[in-house]
Order: sequence, then structure tokens, then C-alpha cells
Amino acid sequence: MKSGKLYLLPTPIGDRPVYDVLPALNREVMASLDYFIVENLRTARRFLSRAAVGRPIDELRFEELNEHTRPEEWARLLAPVLEGTNAGLMSEAGVPGVADPGADLVALAHQQGVEVIPLVGPSSIILALMASGLNGQSFAFNGYLPVKQPERGKAIRFFEKRARNEHQSQLFIEAPYRNVKLFQDFLTICGEHTRLCVAVDVLQPDQQIMTHSIARWRELPMPEMQKRPAIFILG
Amino acid sequence: MKSGKLYLLPTPIGDRPVYDVLPALNREVMASLDYFIVENLRTARRFLSRAAVGRPIDELRFEELNEHTRPEEWARLLAPVLEGTNAGLMSEAGVPGVADPGADLVALAHQQGVEVIPLVGPSSIILALMASGLNGQSFAFNGYLPVKQPERGKAIRFFEKRARNEHQSQLFIEAPYRNVKLFQDFLTICGEHTRLCVAVDVLQPDQQIMTHSIARWRELPMPEMQKRPAIFILG
Repeated sequence: MKSGKLYLLPTPIGDRPVYDVLPALNREVMASLDYFIVENLRTARRFLSRAAVGRPIDELRFEELNEHTRPEEWARLLAPVLEGTNAGLMSEAGVPGVADPGADLVALAHQQGVEVIPLVGPSSIILALMASGLNGQSFAFNGYLPVKQPERGKAIRFFEKRARNEHQSQLFIEAPYRNVKLFQDFLTICGEHTRLCVAVDVLQPDQQIMTHSIARWRELPMPEMQKRPAIFILG
Repeated sequence: MKSGKLYLLPTPIGDRPVYDVLPALNREVMASLDYFIVENLRTARRFLSRAAVGRPIDELRFEELNEHTRPEEWARLLAPVLEGTNAGLMSEAGVPGVADPGADLVALAHQQGVEVIPLVGPSSIILALMASGLNGQSFAFNGYLPVKQPERGKAIRFFEKRARNEHQSQLFIEAPYRNVKLFQDFLTICGEHTRLCVAVDVLQPDQQIMTHSIARWRELPMPEMQKRPAIFILG
């Protein structure tokens, strides 16, 4: 039997109108699918309503895949695809599998010979990097820094050194309520010539993306960032 | 005087219909602009025609920014923006500033207090990573590997080790006519448990994205990749 395909479906970041940040083709693909593997059921249903895929949401099949999903469940989630059903994988915001769940299921799909098809959509990592003016020929996304000292300070020094020695931009995310703390840690720990980009509320109406040297940041007022999604980049 | 804004405008990868891979909002923004800073004049004009922005292309102002542009010209390119004109920055394919020219101009824009606004579009790096099933919580894009031995072998071993020790996916591009050589080098040099994703012609009709262990790749027929754009990922 011929396998179905696994479509990777980006979702909007924040409350932007869906097709301000997704191509119209994504709607066609979503409208053709009966089976969705999603990070969060409620968010996914709401998104598909907003995306106006023209299908009664109640007739669609949903399964959740997130940090609570045990590895032994992945095969069950993929089973309909092996039986010929196309599936759509989506995370809560942005692109699945990048700083979001999904990669393990995609890995299993490759093992089973299922065709994996990524669609275009917003990645706050790439948007922040594009807009940072920092090196986009070599960059690394490192996720979260350790929360506790002395590991946190050590990690910041480690990545600052890598940014300088390898000329590789270093990207981080933080839990939004800890953004101010992270910003202050960068200002305290990093050298004055190191550049720091702060990208807050990317794609939102009050988006702020600013890049300055640490020396310059020390003179400037701190951007509003508390409890707002942010990407930080050292370069 | 109030500065204009610098919009970062993605362009399609390959020959896909423009709005299969770009949101409709991008068209509105492009239709509002009189000034474009572009990697290649001919490609940019052709893209804007295909994008049907509803403006006579001959009435628009274009300047080129690419590997031939000297740093002392950046200020001239940005001058109209400082005088209040909005500008659009675009590369030949994909998103400007990421594995493409543009970052230096964006850096200057930040120095001059110009607002930088990234729009959504296709990045073959992110699409390949999403579809690879390799770790998307930590990843690095390293551009091109050295062409000559022994530097090339050393670099492959270095990045394979980093992928393993830091559990960080390592992404590379190659000049398309050297893809087969790079694929063979990975198969010869890397350990059998290392995973390799080959993403060929991403977003094109004949897209092929496959991830296997090196041991498995050694048994499989080599995917068609010669002279086709490709992303390689070690994980």
C-alpha cells in the first residue's frame, strides 16, 4: 500500500491575520487534509477556523504531539499515514520541528519511507536573524540558556567567545517573564564590542528589533520586553 | 526628518508561482515601494513582474547590493531611506541576509536608527531543517565547507563531533556541481551512526528530502543531486 504524505504546516505567530503570514497555497493543502497531528488541540482547532479551510472542524481527526507524548506513541500517530492518509503536523506558533515539537515524528516518517513536505511560514528565528544585521552566513540557534548560576554566566561567556572566534551569530530564546533578566545578564557579562540584537514581538504590531553594541546598549533605555516573546542574538 | 523603513522582502526559491510561497501581504508591501535594493537587477525586475505588484517596473528605482558592492557604497544605498523613502531589500532567492547578501546594510540601518521590518518567505535552510527530523532545538548553519584537503576532511570531522557532543544539527550548502563529491565525502568520513539529511530542490516539484544514518546511506542508491540546489545536515 502506498503511504500518505506528512505535510509540515506552519501557523501564524501572534494574532496576525492568517494569510498575512502564510501563503495561499497552505490553505489548499490544509483544506485537503482529514488528519492533523498538533501540539495543542484547542489552538489547532481555532487556527483551522481562522484559516477558513472550508471543512467542518468536527469531521477532522486530531491527535496531540507535545512534550507529554511518550516515544512509544509516535508509531500510533504515524500509522494512518502508513495506511495511505495524508497528515498535517503543526505546532502552536511558527514552524513545526524548529524550536517546537515534531522532529521525532518526522524522523520516524523518514525511517518508514514517508514523504515529508514542508510548507512556507513564519519562523521567528529566521525573521529575527534577517532583521538583526548580524552574520547570516554562519549562525547557531541554542534554545534556552541555563537558568542557574554559575552555569548561566559560563554559558553566556562560552557563546560570546564562539560568536567572536568563529564569527557565528548565536541565537537564544528565553521564557518571556525572564527576558529582562537575560538582557541584563548580557549587558553585565559581555564585552563592550559584542553586538546584541533584541527582537521582541516579531511580526506583531508592536514589533521591536534593535541591534547595538553592548557599550551602546548600556547607555540606552531598555526596550519593553517583559512577558513579550523575544529572540536574543549575540554577534 | 523621519526616516523611511527598510523592508526585508523574501523571493521565491526556484520557479514556484510567487504566492504559493509568499503571503499576499508581501504583495501589498511591494506595491507600496518605489525603491529596491537588490542582489541582481535582472532577477529582481523579473520577480516584481511575476509578483504583479501593479506598478510600471521602469518607474521604480533599483540599486544593486551584492558581493561586488564596496562597503563605502552602503551609505549611498541607505541615503534615500534616511531622507524618508521606504526601501525593499531582496536577494536572488529566499530571504535576504541569511546565506545571502544584505546583513551589512541592515547593520548600517540599525546604526542610523532606521526601522527594519522582515516579511515572511521561504528559507531553504529552515524548510530543510523542519523536514529533516533532526534536532531543531539546537542547530547551526555553517555555509560552505573548505574545498581542499586536508582542511575539508578536518572540517567534516570537526562538525560531526560538534553534532554528536552538543546534539546540535549542523547544516551546510555546497556549489551544486560539487554536491556528489560532498555526499561521498560524508559517507567516507562520518561514523555509521551519524545521521545525514540531504534536501534537494526544496520547494521544487522534484523536491527530495531524505534522512538516514551513514550506514544506511552506504547501502542506498545515491539521490539525484548533481547541479541541483541542496542543503546537507549532519545530526
